[in-house]
Amino acid sequence: MAPDTVERLAGVTTATVSMQLLKRGITACYMRGVAALAPGARLVGPAYTLRYVPMREDLAPLAQLGDADNAARRAIEECPAGAVLVCDARGVTDSGTIGDILLLRLARRGVAGVVSDGGVRDVAACREVGLPVFCAGPAAPASPSAHVPADLEAPIACGGVAVLPGDVLVGDEDGVVVIPAALAEEVARDAVEQEDIEAFIALLVGQGRPVIGTYPPTDAIRGEHRRWVEAGRPDTW
Amino acid sequence: MAPDTVERLAGVTTATVSMQLLKRGITACYMRGVAALAPGARLVGPAYTLRYVPMREDLAPLAQLGDADNAARRAIEECPAGAVLVCDARGVTDSGTIGDILLLRLARRGVAGVVSDGGVRDVAACREVGLPVFCAGPAAPASPSAHVPADLEAPIACGGVAVLPGDVLVGDEDGVVVIPAALAEEVARDAVEQEDIEAFIALLVGQGRPVIGTYPPTDAIRGEHRRWVEAGRPDTW
Amino acid sequence: MAPDTVERLAGVTTATVSMQLLKRGITACYMRGVAALAPGARLVGPAYTLRYVPMREDLAPLAQLGDADNAARRAIEECPAGAVLVCDARGVTDSGTIGDILLLRLARRGVAGVVSDGGVRDVAACREVGLPVFCAGPAAPASPSAHVPADLEAPIACGGVAVLPGDVLVGDEDGVVVIPAALAEEVARDAVEQEDIEAFIALLVGQGRPVIGTYPPTDAIRGEHRRWVEAGRPDTW
Amino acid sequence: MAPDTVERLAGVTTATVSMQLLKRGITACYMRGVAALAPGARLVGPAYTLRYVPMREDLAPLAQLGDADNAARRAIEECPAGAVLVCDARGVTDSGTIGDILLLRLARRGVAGVVSDGGVRDVAACREVGLPVFCAGPAAPASPSAHVPADLEAPIACGGVAVLPGDVLVGDEDGVVVIPAALAEEVARDAVEQEDIEAFIALLVGQGRPVIGTYPPTDAIRGEHRRWVEAGRPDTW
Amino acid sequence: MAPDTVERLAGVTTATVSMQLLKRGITACYMRGVAALAPGARLVGPAYTLRYVPMREDLAPLAQLGDADNAARRAIEECPAGAVLVCDARGVTDSGTIGDILLLRLARRGVAGVVSDGGVRDVAACREVGLPVFCAGPAAPASPSAHVPADLEAPIACGGVAVLPGDVLVGDEDGVVVIPAALAEEVARDAVEQEDIEAFIALLVGQGRPVIGTYPPTDAIRGEHRRWVEAGRPDTW
Amino acid sequence: MAPDTVERLAGVTTATVSMQLLKRGITACYMRGVAALAPGARLVGPAYTLRYVPMREDLAPLAQLGDADNAARRAIEECPAGAVLVCDARGVTDSGTIGDILLLRLARRGVAGVVSDGGVRDVAACREVGLPVFCAGPAAPASPSAHVPADLEAPIACGGVAVLPGDVLVGDEDGVVVIPAALAEEVARDAVEQEDIEAFIALLVGQGRPVIGTYPPTDAIRGEHRRWVEAGRPDTW
Repeated sequence: MAPDTVERLAGVTTATVSMQLLKRGITACYMRGVAALAPGARLVGPAYTLRYVPMREDLAPLAQLGDADNAARRAIEECPAGAVLVCDARGVTDSGTIGDILLLRLARRGVAGVVSDGGVRDVAACREVGLPVFCAGPAAPASPSAHVPADLEAPIACGGVAVLPGDVLVGDEDGVVVIPAALAEEVARDAVEQEDIEAFIALLVGQGRPVIGTYPPTDAIRGEHRRWVEAGRPDTW
Repeated sequence: MAPDTVERLAGVTTATVSMQLLKRGITACYMRGVAALAPGARLVGPAYTLRYVPMREDLAPLAQLGDADNAARRAIEECPAGAVLVCDARGVTDSGTIGDILLLRLARRGVAGVVSDGGVRDVAACREVGLPVFCAGPAAPASPSAHVPADLEAPIACGGVAVLPGDVLVGDEDGVVVIPAALAEEVARDAVEQEDIEAFIALLVGQGRPVIGTYPPTDAIRGEHRRWVEAGRPDTW
Repeated sequence: MAPDTVERLAGVTTATVSMQLLKRGITACYMRGVAALAPGARLVGPAYTLRYVPMREDLAPLAQLGDADNAARRAIEECPAGAVLVCDARGVTDSGTIGDILLLRLARRGVAGVVSDGGVRDVAACREVGLPVFCAGPAAPASPSAHVPADLEAPIACGGVAVLPGDVLVGDEDGVVVIPAALAEEVARDAVEQEDIEAFIALLVGQGRPVIGTYPPTDAIRGEHRRWVEAGRPDTW
Repeated sequence: MAPDTVERLAGVTTATVSMQLLKRGITACYMRGVAALAPGARLVGPAYTLRYVPMREDLAPLAQLGDADNAARRAIEECPAGAVLVCDARGVTDSGTIGDILLLRLARRGVAGVVSDGGVRDVAACREVGLPVFCAGPAAPASPSAHVPADLEAPIACGGVAVLPGDVLVGDEDGVVVIPAALAEEVARDAVEQEDIEAFIALLVGQGRPVIGTYPPTDAIRGEHRRWVEAGRPDTW
Repeated sequence: MAPDTVERLAGVTTATVSMQLLKRGITACYMRGVAALAPGARLVGPAYTLRYVPMREDLAPLAQLGDADNAARRAIEECPAGAVLVCDARGVTDSGTIGDILLLRLARRGVAGVVSDGGVRDVAACREVGLPVFCAGPAAPASPSAHVPADLEAPIACGGVAVLPGDVLVGDEDGVVVIPAALAEEVARDAVEQEDIEAFIALLVGQGRPVIGTYPPTDAIRGEHRRWVEAGRPDTW
Repeated sequence: MAPDTVERLAGVTTATVSMQLLKRGITACYMRGVAALAPGARLVGPAYTLRYVPMREDLAPLAQLGDADNAARRAIEECPAGAVLVCDARGVTDSGTIGDILLLRLARRGVAGVVSDGGVRDVAACREVGLPVFCAGPAAPASPSAHVPADLEAPIACGGVAVLPGDVLVGDEDGVVVIPAALAEEVARDAVEQEDIEAFIALLVGQGRPVIGTYPPTDAIRGEHRRWVEAGRPDTW
């Protein structure tokens, strides 16, 4: 992924990204039931995936973080800097898939953030760590209460959306959108352009223009937008 | 609707309004799964309704805001000042029924607010617009991902409650309550009175009175309340 | 319950408490769908239980707070100081099981807080009362819209967890955990110790230690922790 | 309850019974998610209630049928002949609240049937017992996997409906309806009459009459019905 | 709609129809939670739509079938012969949208069947009427317990799918699929062809052919199929 | 797995198997929402697993059975004779994970049956194939409408239960239970014994014995059972 792709996506909203994907025929990209843990959180990065299967009492030893083969434990040390740790927790909301100490380690290692369709524990401490976390909400119990780690870097489901390792995740207050890796660059480019036009439209609408003929942008509006850009983006128009 | 009805309802809570409706035998008035987007939001106004049906790929052209017959687009320009735009989105939480630019236009036009049992997109920008919005929560995808506009000003379901055009909606931090148009005036009047008595009861309970014999108010308490009012509503009693 | 048990539990998180219970083979202790009404709320105390059954129109008189036999009304005056009023509302989210005036009375009487798997009404006023409340969220309608009080101090279900009178509830931003009365003392003691070790581990991880070999704590880490304690808990290690 | 009340209710449908309750202002009478285990099952009788709370590992001994204080075990031997054992299983579908051996004992003791909003285990064997069972469906695990018996003959919730000991339950292929004890006699009487009129209306509609002016019955139709009855209920009219 | 379109669709499965729609880019065509009331039921016909909104106590008079403006009552007499009455009941499962007498009238009038995403009451009697009914299952209470009729022949949602008046519905044991009116003819034609090829493939697989290279049909299989047809569709190949 | 383990498990119910697992501390073994497609179906065999992730439009080519790398297609030809094909469909009920032609191929290849927590399409034809199928119910759309095959023979979740390749599945009218491979032999042995004692207890209860002191079996009953066995299992006792 080109470095400026991450940079561009860091400046646009998930609403814009999902619109760019819709224009490319992709609707199955928005995670259900996954929200930012802290107000104002923003997230961009390629996915590193961790998959859980349901707890079963005979598998309990494998669920312990102390176990050397525990995939969740390996994820904490192996998720690359800049990547997003994405957890498939089958949408189970009453168990925490990660807590503050592991999150602190991820932050130290330069990981970009965490996305889980399960819960997160010790959320007060997690927010202090500062790493962006998107999840199903707080949940006090540790992951072995509901989960056994199954594998790393396989395709997963998260929030009802397929996530392949390397797909690009973007998160903000509207939630999390998954961009197929092959589309990340063009989506980033067009999303930036879309937001620029929409800033101009918001200016017009704020000044009293009706939306009909203005939004979505017609060719006339696109032309007007270009002139506005050439004019140095003045505050009124 | 008498102008002071809106004014009175603006000063009472949905808890009080729903109690007044319960006293009149109406329980099916509280929207499920619909909450204020911004803390402290308050909303009062008559309903202007917009109904969506599910997206179907062959109907996609009708779902585009650029389409001249698009009912959602007309709603933005036709919802009267002072009214509340109420959207029947069938409780679908993972698609946004409105976004910041359309909301800005509604604000400019003097609309009182928006209620939807679907999602809202670009919630950060929406909150800056300042118009009260009550919905199922944030959702990045645009409405064509899940919805096709069907009609305007028909009876709808929103949050599991029937809403007829002209019914009066009241919203606060507890959610949204629908008042049948014919009852709005008397509910407004009695709700103001109920809150006045309850302010007095809260004073008493704060000073140590038990609730038995005090709340709900007996005739004795109602008499005591009248004396308290005549005494100029002193801070202690 | 020993007085210092409450004191100890007041200083630990529900994440830690649920881990101590998991170590004792108890997983069915975390309430689903029950969260703090106000940010930062914390709660500890023994349970005093109130059970509702569904509203049925012929039972409506029993649901009125004015009725002398109303169990909900008695709960407000009889729940002991220091105890937590725990309401079994069958997870019904669209009716309020308690409102601000009753909450104010509970606060005056020294009750420790309220837990309900139903809604709470007039949440803005409830937050001003200051008593910790954990519930399914705001709901404007009064309890008779959905509930009839059934009994006091019976075993109940709340948030999918069994609560017996006298069980100890702990609540924080992660939700509410139920500690069986017989385990409260040992859980309190071990939870305090666990948090002390984890504070040390967080210090290490913050300084760059990997989690493997550090967390969960090995014997070596426990030894290192003891030395850190003996050294007066220095800020770096 | 008058003996002919049971007899009358045995001959009418739950559709008719719920209509009679609706006419008396009672809508909260129909159990959600509770259906007959065997095709053609019919059930009538007064309720004998058993309440479960959620399994919690420390309460497991109380959940064992071998325990002398186990309320579920007592229910099997104490539920009166002619009564219906009604179980509050909180709508948990993946655990069986009763199995074939206990059902066989109930049948031997002359109990009228079983209603549960939880599952039933060993359903193939249960059907051979022949006692009418209405439940959430089959579920292999025994009740201790999810439940601990709490008490007998208390008011309960079952299928979202309040059931008081002595209320009359009627079940058929449409599900289960609860008749408040005080209304059973009049509902039984009027239900029989309603079904007689509807049999006449079905005859008319079968012969080509439109429903407008026929159903629901007008006074003219009621008069025609009386003449039809006087004429000895002929097959054509 | 060409008469032979109905005839063709009567001979194919909903599995095949949904595949033909998928090939045309239409996935949002299968109703969720809607199943045949009687085993072996089959249904084909154009949609005639009836929309309900939620019951609200002040609207109760409009919900009575005796009311002259009641849309549900008009639907029974106005739904054309050959058409399917499709009811938008918002997926509410605990109220019956239709019962045996109204169904009998529809049968007499030559209506093709009924589809509802709500319940149906008096299902035993309904099955005897013989008209195909697809619904959410049995439900004893009459529709006024949950619904008020809103309008006829508007676009609706049913089972999560948009249904426009005139769209063609096909139902069998797999459920109900909606074919947009404009596609009905070509879908009918290609569905018949698909089933013919699949009958041949089933013959081959039954004789031991692997599915790889056989199903989905390659060009070679299509050629082989043509020869089989020319050979008079022999029982072995 | 010893051959007589399958044979023994073929003769016992899932109710008994789940009880044997409960005695060994395993409760997380019963699939939720998975039922036999045909009445009387029974299933035993080791698991061969297939995992799906959600459909995403850019992954559509991978979802086509015609694709050479399609894991679902490989599963049909590679699942061993005697094994059970177990599909992780994330509990999505409105898409069919398998249809009649693939099922026919599995039957031809000697596979023991299919378990899926998703739907099955063309259920009428599937039942004619005769292979036992346990699933979430009928669903007309083909799997690409909701799923992309992800991998084979990985640990999966099915019906909320972890299934590892080689675990033994038992299915009957009560649903499906998963036996960890390491426990299959002892569970099979003890399940047979349990059913033999319960047959004796059913005989006693059928003759009028109370359940207290009889069921669950005391030592005295176990002794009596041995004498009954020695006496040649007479029909009365």
